[in-house]
Amino acid sequence: MSAAAQARRLQPAGELDIVVLEQGPKISYSACGIPYWIGGQVSDPDRLLARTPADFAEQDIAVRTGTRAEGIDLAVGEVVAAGGERIGYDSLVVATGGRPFRPPVPGLDADGVHGVHRLADGADIRAAIAAGAERAVVLGGGYIGLEMAEVLQARGLEVTVVLADPLPMAQLDADMGQRVCAAMCGMGIDVQSDQPVREIEVGPEGAVRAVRTDAAAYDADLVVLGLGMGPETTLAREAGLQLGSTGAIDVAHTQRSRSHPEVLAAGDCAQTFHRITGEAIHVALGTHANKQGRVAGSVIGGRPARFAGVLGTAMTKVGDLEVARTGLCTTQAEEGGYDFRTEVIESSTRAGYYPGAAPIAVKIITEAGSGLLLGAQVVGGPGSGKRIDVFATAIWAGLTAEELAGSDLSYAPPFSPTYDPVVVAARVASRIEQG
Amino acid sequence: MSAAAQARRLQPAGELDIVVLEQGPKISYSACGIPYWIGGQVSDPDRLLARTPADFAEQDIAVRTGTRAEGIDLAVGEVVAAGGERIGYDSLVVATGGRPFRPPVPGLDADGVHGVHRLADGADIRAAIAAGAERAVVLGGGYIGLEMAEVLQARGLEVTVVLADPLPMAQLDADMGQRVCAAMCGMGIDVQSDQPVREIEVGPEGAVRAVRTDAAAYDADLVVLGLGMGPETTLAREAGLQLGSTGAIDVAHTQRSRSHPEVLAAGDCAQTFHRITGEAIHVALGTHANKQGRVAGSVIGGRPARFAGVLGTAMTKVGDLEVARTGLCTTQAEEGGYDFRTEVIESSTRAGYYPGAAPIAVKIITEAGSGLLLGAQVVGGPGSGKRIDVFATAIWAGLTAEELAGSDLSYAPPFSPTYDPVVVAARVASRIEQG
Repeated sequence: MSAAAQARRLQPAGELDIVVLEQGPKISYSACGIPYWIGGQVSDPDRLLARTPADFAEQDIAVRTGTRAEGIDLAVGEVVAAGGERIGYDSLVVATGGRPFRPPVPGLDADGVHGVHRLADGADIRAAIAAGAERAVVLGGGYIGLEMAEVLQARGLEVTVVLADPLPMAQLDADMGQRVCAAMCGMGIDVQSDQPVREIEVGPEGAVRAVRTDAAAYDADLVVLGLGMGPETTLAREAGLQLGSTGAIDVAHTQRSRSHPEVLAAGDCAQTFHRITGEAIHVALGTHANKQGRVAGSVIGGRPARFAGVLGTAMTKVGDLEVARTGLCTTQAEEGGYDFRTEVIESSTRAGYYPGAAPIAVKIITEAGSGLLLGAQVVGGPGSGKRIDVFATAIWAGLTAEELAGSDLSYAPPFSPTYDPVVVAARVASRIEQG
Repeated sequence: MSAAAQARRLQPAGELDIVVLEQGPKISYSACGIPYWIGGQVSDPDRLLARTPADFAEQDIAVRTGTRAEGIDLAVGEVVAAGGERIGYDSLVVATGGRPFRPPVPGLDADGVHGVHRLADGADIRAAIAAGAERAVVLGGGYIGLEMAEVLQARGLEVTVVLADPLPMAQLDADMGQRVCAAMCGMGIDVQSDQPVREIEVGPEGAVRAVRTDAAAYDADLVVLGLGMGPETTLAREAGLQLGSTGAIDVAHTQRSRSHPEVLAAGDCAQTFHRITGEAIHVALGTHANKQGRVAGSVIGGRPARFAGVLGTAMTKVGDLEVARTGLCTTQAEEGGYDFRTEVIESSTRAGYYPGAAPIAVKIITEAGSGLLLGAQVVGGPGSGKRIDVFATAIWAGLTAEELAGSDLSYAPPFSPTYDPVVVAARVASRIEQG
């Protein structure tokens, strides 16, 4: 929809016909908001809808919901819709999105096992809670896993999070993930680590009964998949579009596909690149999807545009604990062959004497020698998480830790200590002595 | 104290004697915290003390509280303390701080008229409230003025803010200041604009009775000076140190005074420079004071260091409204001769559907042609203010609005819309179409 809207801005209806095919009943919904609909923070799912087909119709963009694209005929430039209708194109944007990773274990199709991806998933989970679900197992401890653990517990369910990894939030270094794990345990969420799921045990009536690992079986009448999202590329692959090393559609910075430049791809189905390393990665996140769609729409509309890459910035919360990261974590820095060093500082979200001051830990990763900022991670109380944007901006701009340490960040007692934790971390990393 | 601590880190006690003279009873206190002590958010003023003389004694730094420096003999390199004691120095740091601006009107010395500068001011105002003060007039609508209006109202006083300017927060553009003014009025704070104070009316027993302007007289049994801080340079000036165009002590980027390099100055008494324009300015703020002190201490300790300048980043709140600014405002950009343009966007602090989402307005000032970020202002609900740090970092790094618009900022529904208001503002400023 971002691509469609942007293309229309650049080309009036007389110049460019725009047709959008959507297999589901809705468009422009916030998948990221689904956990909070389940949790009850959002009462009406229509509030998750940013725009409707009628909104787009006003811009002469024809949105055909309930219309599944079943094939792409690259040779003649046509999309084959369900029922056999063929729709010709000069430019095509593939925006088939992502799909939740599903572990290859028996029982995954049982009643009571749900992703958190489409609005229908949210409705199903809400219905399960309304029907009396009491014990939930969340598979995975990434963003969706954490958010679902929080909201399901808030709805009164007993929640167990089962991880294949040693810690939740595998995008963090272990020492930071440990803080998240401790907070979850402190909330009463049962975290079971290092246990790949082996089987979903199914009861006699076809409903989930438990999640079994090598260590134990965890009773459940609701299982939520929080194992991350992969690219949904069935349509692209079957058509013959070239996929990249990540399994997502291989695109240039213009979002044009490498193999067929008249076909563009954007969002969770498309491969992208890391701003620091330049390497191909796949990141399923709405912010990138929106920006890539806009780039694709600009290119189709005739205005040159390039996607500028991702730093892997991400943020979530579990209870009052805010968690955020950007750039390279230690593992990524090692894999990238960087000579780097890490520092962790502990500070306070506000002046220590101001009510509500909460602990915040900041980890910073810098290139040895140059002092260039490579990555940062933040875990702490309310007000912590958005501080990652300062690091993201500094990394984006190519600042060193010393430059960031000298920068002029805001200070007022209700919002930070005299030296903001960001500055303290940057200073320690730049080896300027503290005090 | 920052200078002393940093010099000691670099030079052991056998190499460098360090003596600190402080006229008051305490050191290292947070002047910025005094409003919140008055407001009751901080119950114990000792919590405003970052460090004590005993802490410094452990580092072999001799702190002599209650010892007023009455003169500097630059010719022989001695400080003259109260009582005539002369203390020789090789290097001297002048850190005499600032003093509240006092309007030149009759009655200013009446009982019940207070600055908000020293701990004693806080104690006096608390005592006035405890003794039954009911009506307060705050002179000035800058940071201290806003904070004092908030806390006095919270303590149950009727509060009138009397401004010489048309709007509170003169560091903001008028359209943004108007939002602050509206919020104050909505809280029940009486804001009286465009009225320079003419007289403090004093009752028969020597206590303040009212504040008189050309328009009216405002009853008051408590008057608070929130007119800003000027440099306290009496000692420096009488000694013969050269002052700069701002009236503060003229220093190089090393914090060495221009006229006498063996004398350094740091903090509110010292002149500094604007990072963007390079021009001399005076900014009384604890963050700069700390950093300048550290630079002075490094220089004395033998490690080269330079202060990197200020952007004029500042932040405060009044009630639930957060207010922040960085870089050049419109007036400053005009005075600086920039060809610039401004944009204002309105957005939401969180995803619109997430509970607690509040309006946020962002104003951005960019150089025409280059698109370089020159300044930003933020006014909005909880979570708004610290977003100024992203702009401060981007300006510090010399980013254009388009570069910032492409950056990878964090997104999660409890913390921002899909496009953070920072990105929306940067995008609008870079003339990339919205959508």
